[in-house]
Amino acid sequence: MNTIEPTLIVSKNLVLKNINKIKNKAEKNGIRFRPHFKTHQSVEIGEWLRVLGINCITVSSVRMAECFAKAGWIDITIAIPVNILEIEKMNELAKKVQLNLLIESIETVRTLEEKLKHSVKVWINIDTGYHRDGIEWNETYKIIQIATHIHNAKNMHLTGILTHAGHSYKARNRTEIIAVHEDTINKMVQLQEEFKREGYNNLQISVGDTPTSSVADDFSLVDEIRPGNFVFYDLKQVQIGSCTEEEIAIRLACPVIAKYDERKEILVDGGAIHLSKDFILDKEGRTIYGYISQSLDNEFSKVKDTYVSAISQEHGTIKTNNNNFFQRTNIGDIIYIIPVHACLTTNSMSKLKTLSGKEIQATCR
Amino acid sequence: MNTIEPTLIVSKNLVLKNINKIKNKAEKNGIRFRPHFKTHQSVEIGEWLRVLGINCITVSSVRMAECFAKAGWIDITIAIPVNILEIEKMNELAKKVQLNLLIESIETVRTLEEKLKHSVKVWINIDTGYHRDGIEWNETYKIIQIATHIHNAKNMHLTGILTHAGHSYKARNRTEIIAVHEDTINKMVQLQEEFKREGYNNLQISVGDTPTSSVADDFSLVDEIRPGNFVFYDLKQVQIGSCTEEEIAIRLACPVIAKYDERKEILVDGGAIHLSKDFILDKEGRTIYGYISQSLDNEFSKVKDTYVSAISQEHGTIKTNNNNFFQRTNIGDIIYIIPVHACLTTNSMSKLKTLSGKEIQATCR
Repeated sequence: MNTIEPTLIVSKNLVLKNINKIKNKAEKNGIRFRPHFKTHQSVEIGEWLRVLGINCITVSSVRMAECFAKAGWIDITIAIPVNILEIEKMNELAKKVQLNLLIESIETVRTLEEKLKHSVKVWINIDTGYHRDGIEWNETYKIIQIATHIHNAKNMHLTGILTHAGHSYKARNRTEIIAVHEDTINKMVQLQEEFKREGYNNLQISVGDTPTSSVADDFSLVDEIRPGNFVFYDLKQVQIGSCTEEEIAIRLACPVIAKYDERKEILVDGGAIHLSKDFILDKEGRTIYGYISQSLDNEFSKVKDTYVSAISQEHGTIKTNNNNFFQRTNIGDIIYIIPVHACLTTNSMSKLKTLSGKEIQATCR
Repeated sequence: MNTIEPTLIVSKNLVLKNINKIKNKAEKNGIRFRPHFKTHQSVEIGEWLRVLGINCITVSSVRMAECFAKAGWIDITIAIPVNILEIEKMNELAKKVQLNLLIESIETVRTLEEKLKHSVKVWINIDTGYHRDGIEWNETYKIIQIATHIHNAKNMHLTGILTHAGHSYKARNRTEIIAVHEDTINKMVQLQEEFKREGYNNLQISVGDTPTSSVADDFSLVDEIRPGNFVFYDLKQVQIGSCTEEEIAIRLACPVIAKYDERKEILVDGGAIHLSKDFILDKEGRTIYGYISQSLDNEFSKVKDTYVSAISQEHGTIKTNNNNFFQRTNIGDIIYIIPVHACLTTNSMSKLKTLSGKEIQATCR
């Protein structure tokens, strides 16, 4: 790759492979695939999904929804509890596209009831164990109360119950991911049954973070999945058990600017403003900000005994016990870092380059 | 503050106070104040410094140097070991401005010797204990060898020795900061003496990270200081002992989108893409992504028993044991987060708003 500064490289082949894997799974289960676009935030990568027949998307902010609406997407879920201060922007959006909103409080329902000018679909946000957002799945009384309120309000079409089982990120193998998946489905289906008892017969279920969408096969009891990270994957997903290293579709290309023989370290131009400060801990408890890829060939090959051990704003330190790698790496070379967190890395970089050198903007950042 | 989405607020008064504190110290010591602009990356905030008589600046990338050169800055140090792949851009810059480069290897000297087309000032990058970059301060033979090479090369004017004592960030009080400061000065002066013995009589010394520049008073033995973070300060600097909470000049304004009575948590629209994922550990070992400010009044007042306990891409979780604060905070309110790391927060946001509502772009991001 011909580059002189930190550059985020994406393999379109791998991205398409990753998309098709989940898409086929959704089709086999007869459910809607509504990918989360916060990972790439790119109109162009969005098109790679659109040509495969994907029509519904998820985003994490009104700003992102506006951007993808402008790019022609017409069915958008904003997967964060409604920020009522943005009501005017939501009205503008709802005029043009099928907008799906997340609600979890009576206060918000009341505000929307008063201020919504166009019809939107509403999903009740359910907490199935992550405890970041949503109403506890078993607080049936509270949930049904909000549902009733929504049901009676104008411009709000009660569509279903939605959860983000983010605690799947604590899993460390496929068995643990499947356990979260089954528990999530179980809770959501139980809640759906409760709704049926109250006469709500057509409520849909929306689930599907990257770990469970990647690993589980049976989604027959839900109506849609919304993974995001899977387009690129990253080291965090490998650690969770969602994917293999070979499936990670991005690398941060960084110029080598110094070498330290005594401590077998290589300094690169590339730091926290490119990779973010997310890290994983390896089995020895070391903080890892990235691993190193031998090359940009499609076949992944990680440099052994080598990792990004420290980052500051624009400096990255690569520590190695691999003499061969250390000796052959020179100042002025380019090193390819496999990122820990694809979403934050892409957000930091705001643009990518394909292997053929084409620049792709994270337009909706 | 009238805002509907995560917005980075800056108090110009506090920024000017922070600048003047360091500026006065530099003047008292009769040394050059060369602030690092990577923290704000803003042409406009640069002007706040320029009107105070500051003419020399530090940046951390060629890209940033180009941007500030375009804004009229004519004496710029790129404080990261030279990335030789960017030689053409450096030549363009050196044509227009007084460019100062950091060198720490013979390989890089050789490349520059061959490819530099205009005169630049060169600083030898010294490691005084941080062990991120630079040549170990006591590797005198190696240092003098590089110096001689630079001295004999055309277009390279050997100007001095430079260090970033980043290990001052491990300090936890003023005494520990002063210890790093004195040790740094001591090592740099010893090295300067070695140079004098070799006939290099006019080599300057450049030091000065934010902790030591903020706390130490005696800089009489050095020639310039290059702190950056001090313009804004942050919780990390408070923990180090560089500043008080009252000196922190920025806040991230975030809309409240949910409340959780059972666990006394407040969810805001605002997460890792706004604050970065940098954190501090408090005395109880808890991970803190930010504290909360009562208001935007100049007089700082932190909300007691309250902190940002978790962040994901766009969600921030605020945990509180402060019943009063919890009760009076409602969905749709704005909460002001005091950031952990001002540089990464500003880099993530890419724009700020003054207390009077004026928008400021981090133009050189």
